[in-house]
Amino acid sequence: MDTIIRKSEKKDRAAIWAILKPIFRTGETYAVDADISKVDALVFWCDGNHVAFVAELAGRILGTYYICPNQGGNGGHICNCGFATHDAAQGKGIARAMLEHSLSAATDMGFRAMQFNFVLASNTRAVKIWERYGFAVIGQIPDAFNHPKDGYVDALVMHKRL
Amino acid sequence: MDTIIRKSEKKDRAAIWAILKPIFRTGETYAVDADISKVDALVFWCDGNHVAFVAELAGRILGTYYICPNQGGNGGHICNCGFATHDAAQGKGIARAMLEHSLSAATDMGFRAMQFNFVLASNTRAVKIWERYGFAVIGQIPDAFNHPKDGYVDALVMHKRL
Repeated sequence: MDTIIRKSEKKDRAAIWAILKPIFRTGETYAVDADISKVDALVFWCDGNHVAFVAELAGRILGTYYICPNQGGNGGHICNCGFATHDAAQGKGIARAMLEHSLSAATDMGFRAMQFNFVLASNTRAVKIWERYGFAVIGQIPDAFNHPKDGYVDALVMHKRL
Repeated sequence: MDTIIRKSEKKDRAAIWAILKPIFRTGETYAVDADISKVDALVFWCDGNHVAFVAELAGRILGTYYICPNQGGNGGHICNCGFATHDAAQGKGIARAMLEHSLSAATDMGFRAMQFNFVLASNTRAVKIWERYGFAVIGQIPDAFNHPKDGYVDALVMHKRL
């Protein structure tokens, strides 16, 4: 069964929130208030200068990601992305499909590079995946994240030219 | 004559814009749209989770800076700042006074570190000042800024524990 990835629409918002809510509530990966409201979370993920996508498998939305300029003005040629997958999507290749889609979509949108500002150094699985896709660590922020279980951990800045 | 640095008030907004406008219009230092409106510029500088300050010399506002959390949630213990000085303030020590004030204010606000996300590597004067005050380069973003005169230049991520 193929994963279909497409731009999100208003009707997808409940499904996006169902993915984001448990991720934000744990406070273990994203630098977002753990008690963020549904409205604020969806504004953050989908609105402003963010373009949000959803990944569907057999008609069910199991993943979502956004692309946005990482800086404004004369820094607007490098994009940033955020990815989130549903618990039920583990092992189905959704995350990788979204990453590949994002690299292609960002290139089509004219971005010259992709940058992640805040990859937890302790999230070695994610770091390895990004590196396999050509991302390099270009910075390391000491004690950047106060992980609920692990305490202060570093965050990496990762970058890939498109 | 001493520089007085204090939290900004609504009445200071015209003076803040007078400082920001030429800096933003040149598009040579901040990753902000060069044609940003006065309203949007002041919202960016002073509102949301930003706390803005002004530096007065002989009753005239010649500098401004803001402090904000650099990330949300469990990343909210590191702050970010932006600084701007009026052309007429060159050589009067306003920039250094604001930097020293910001380090003290950020500490009082409970931040554990200060991070600059986007210091142009070509701005060697600024980089030297930050380093003199204990900031370290913890990252370098290739071709991060499309400088109107110099073309693509790197940006540095700089960090200092408080």
